[in-house]
Formats: sequence, structure tokens, C-alpha cells
Amino acid sequence: MFVSETRIRVRYSETDQMGVVYYGHYAQYFEVGRAEAIRELGWTYRQLEESGILMPVVSMQLRYHRPARYDDLLLVRTQVSEPPGRLITFSSQIFNEEGIHLTSGEVTLTFIDQATGRPCPAPEKLINTFEPFFS
Amino acid sequence: MFVSETRIRVRYSETDQMGVVYYGHYAQYFEVGRAEAIRELGWTYRQLEESGILMPVVSMQLRYHRPARYDDLLLVRTQVSEPPGRLITFSSQIFNEEGIHLTSGEVTLTFIDQATGRPCPAPEKLINTFEPFFS
Amino acid sequence: MFVSETRIRVRYSETDQMGVVYYGHYAQYFEVGRAEAIRELGWTYRQLEESGILMPVVSMQLRYHRPARYDDLLLVRTQVSEPPGRLITFSSQIFNEEGIHLTSGEVTLTFIDQATGRPCPAPEKLINTFEPFFS
Amino acid sequence: MFVSETRIRVRYSETDQMGVVYYGHYAQYFEVGRAEAIRELGWTYRQLEESGILMPVVSMQLRYHRPARYDDLLLVRTQVSEPPGRLITFSSQIFNEEGIHLTSGEVTLTFIDQATGRPCPAPEKLINTFEPFFS
Repeated sequence: MFVSETRIRVRYSETDQMGVVYYGHYAQYFEVGRAEAIRELGWTYRQLEESGILMPVVSMQLRYHRPARYDDLLLVRTQVSEPPGRLITFSSQIFNEEGIHLTSGEVTLTFIDQATGRPCPAPEKLINTFEPFFS
Repeated sequence: MFVSETRIRVRYSETDQMGVVYYGHYAQYFEVGRAEAIRELGWTYRQLEESGILMPVVSMQLRYHRPARYDDLLLVRTQVSEPPGRLITFSSQIFNEEGIHLTSGEVTLTFIDQATGRPCPAPEKLINTFEPFFS
Repeated sequence: MFVSETRIRVRYSETDQMGVVYYGHYAQYFEVGRAEAIRELGWTYRQLEESGILMPVVSMQLRYHRPARYDDLLLVRTQVSEPPGRLITFSSQIFNEEGIHLTSGEVTLTFIDQATGRPCPAPEKLINTFEPFFS
Repeated sequence: MFVSETRIRVRYSETDQMGVVYYGHYAQYFEVGRAEAIRELGWTYRQLEESGILMPVVSMQLRYHRPARYDDLLLVRTQVSEPPGRLITFSSQIFNEEGIHLTSGEVTLTFIDQATGRPCPAPEKLINTFEPFFS
């Protein structure tokens, strides 16, 4: 299992007139969590794309327990529980500064070879990077 | 069962550098679908809020079958399959102009009494509005 | 002078906790206004891009007179006052349903040849399309 | 003169299909810059709102020199050049990691008393906080 943590400060633009973070914006927080997870492993999602691999999302599940509010410094915990194959699933838990669990999410992505536009297996390098966490 | 349809033109701002609609923006399309569904029933979500009821989202599920692209005129089909109680679930299907099924989503919302900040049952008026569709 | 009008319904996601449309989202409304203006002239911004021309924004000016609110059906009036050359400037005025003038904007874009990545003059076709409005 | 600096990592959601940051999103970066500037002065924009003062934007000007790209770690320099009165103007300069100047912006905000909904002078505390920088 691989776990990574990062922090995100809620922007004013991310609130809605209910006075809380709009429910659609958590997808962005999860994306930041995934990007920082990959950075922690020693490379970046940008490099992955530059190497010719795209990672479109195929499914997402979200549960909203409590609202996040403007200026909250959120803790985003991103977890990969299974080695990547044709798919990779990131689980995300978001907490506020008081440690209250606000949101749970699960995002599954696939790998696309940019040259052919077709699905491909996870790149060797990604598999190797994750290997130590699953043995 | 209640079904409502509306159309949304994809904005440039909604694309990302993969050349398709960013996965997080579908939550906005679903929101527009829900708002138009309620309008079709003879009132508006704005009026609902003005009457003191908030409807925060408690969960969302999404499946991304095919990408939507810039300037696509999307068809958003929004469906309510069960009469609202303490919760209401909207199912959404998004299609492009060629009729290709792009995205499926399910969003469940709860009802909050703005005065007390506490969950409350669906307002009478909403229940009555939906009733003909479930008998 | 060329003038085009289109309507945009304010989404919940576009409001912020001040209860009005977030100031940054007007750029999107202007973008929709420009896209619809070009469509009215018989082609689309999508086609323009497909023909190898990109139109990045070089400057924007905005004045916020009154706030737009959730579910407002906005009128976006988009105007081109001078024939396009190396630059093209779109002026936008946004009104609500009561005809109250909410926002004024001016967005200047340039033309980039995608093949070379370098600035280029406005494409012939665009110049010809606009010509009748400036003679 | 008061100058504050903060860093923002470009999110994937902030790019568009031109492969660069969408022109409308810089308003969010400026907002983050203003929030961090106020935090540096010892309080927060959240506290300002909680004290009953809203700060709607009345005008914005932007110049786009070079594009920002996905995963760029941007430096946002936020400057206040004149003591706040009925209005306050923040100037923002955005640079990438190579020190290249990408964007210039100027955002002017006013002060609204939430209780009356009417313009009011800058709160005493804000004036006092800024005073040392202008004498």
C-alpha cells in the first residue's frame, strides 16, 4: 500500500453560495493529491504525459461527509492499494485542520498510448516505482 | 419515473490539455440537468433555497465512457426513479450530438432546514410535484 | 460594427459564498459570447482551431457594476468595433433579465499559426466574414 | 508599498486544450495572492468577512505575456501601492520557475458593510495594518 499526503488551502472561487466548497471541486483536490503522490515517488505526471502516456479517468466515486469551507487548510491523503495494471485506482480522504473527515473519493484511471490513442498497460517505470509498496 | 432533458454546449474553459472535458466538470453538467428538471416541474431550485431548504450533495458516482469535446452540444438526460424522502437521487446520462453515450452519473442529495441547519424531509411541495410520476 | 447576443443561465458552481457570481467566471461568459458571435458569422471557433489557427488572449479589462446571481438568465452582448488585423478585440456587456447592466469587458486576442507557434495575421476568411460590418 | 509573495502549482484542471492555463483562471491566482498578502499582515480575509465586511471586486485588468503550463510552480507577487480608502488596489505579477514574467494584473476592490449592504470605508484595522508600509 502506498500513502501520500499533501495540503490544499480552499480558495474563495471554490466556495458556492451555500458557503461551502462546491461538490464538483473535490475532483480537483483529488487530482492534486494524485500529482503529489507521483511526485513523491520521484517523477511527475507531467513527465508521464511527455513520455507519451495519457491517463484519462474512467470512474469516480465520492462521499461527502462534512463540508469544507473557505480558507480551510485541507489534508488530502491519497492511497494506492493495488499495483497498477491496465487500471490504477487512487483512494482519497480529505480532512480539515481539526482532523474531521470531510470527503472520501475513489478515482480509477486507465493508460492510453498517445501515439495510437489506444489503451495500454501501465508503463514499466510506474510499475517498478510502486513495486516496493506491494511486496 | 421522471425524466428531463436539457442541452449544454461545452465551453473552452471546460477542456483540459488532454483536449477533452476535464473529468471534474461533469458535476456542473449534472447540476444544470437537475436545475432544469426542477424548472420543468414548475418551480426552481432558487425558489427552493429561498423557501429555506438547502440541498447539499451526499454522494456522487460517475462513469466516463467517452470524452466530450470543445463545442459539443451535449444532451443531458436527468432521471428521478424514486419519490424523494430524506434523500433524492438524480441519475444523469450525457450524450453527444451523434447520440454517443459519454458519461453516466448518479448524485444523491439531502434536505437541510436552513433555519436549524439540520436534515429535514423533502418539502411537501416537492413530494407533490413528483407524485404523479410514481403512481 | 458587428454585434451578437447570446444568453447564459448562471450555474450554482459559478456562485461563491458572497452569494453572487465569482469575479473570475465572467471570462468564461465572454468566451461563450465570442464563440456564439463567430457561429453567427457562419463558422465556429472550433473550425478555426482545426484550420491551424490558435487565438490566445493578450489582455482583458473588466468592470463589475452589479452582481449576477444564481439562476439569472444573462444577456451577453458581444461587439467587434474594428476589423481584425494582427489583433482582434471583443467588447462584452452583460445584462440580467431586468435589463440591468452588470458587467463590461474587453478581451483582445492574437492569432498564432499552430504549425510555427508564431503570431500571424487574422485568417483571410475571418477578415472577409467581418468585412461587410465595417464598410 | 507592501509586497507579498506566494507560490501556486498549476493544476491539470486549470489547463485548456491549447495546452496552457485558461485565461480566466488567473483571477483565482490573484485571489490567492491577495489572501496570502492579508495573512502575512497578521489576519485573514476570512476574519475580515466574519467581522461583517465584504470586499467585492469592482474592476480587473490583465495582460498575458507568456502562458503558464501544467505543473508550473508559479510565483505570485502581490503589491499594494496606495493606502486603502474606499477602494483598495492589488497589483499582481506572475512568474514561472525560470523567472519569466507571465502575467500582470490589477484588481480593485471596494468595502461593503454586510449589515447594510452599502459601501463603507476600509476598516480601521486594515488601514492600521497597512500604515507602516506607506509612511
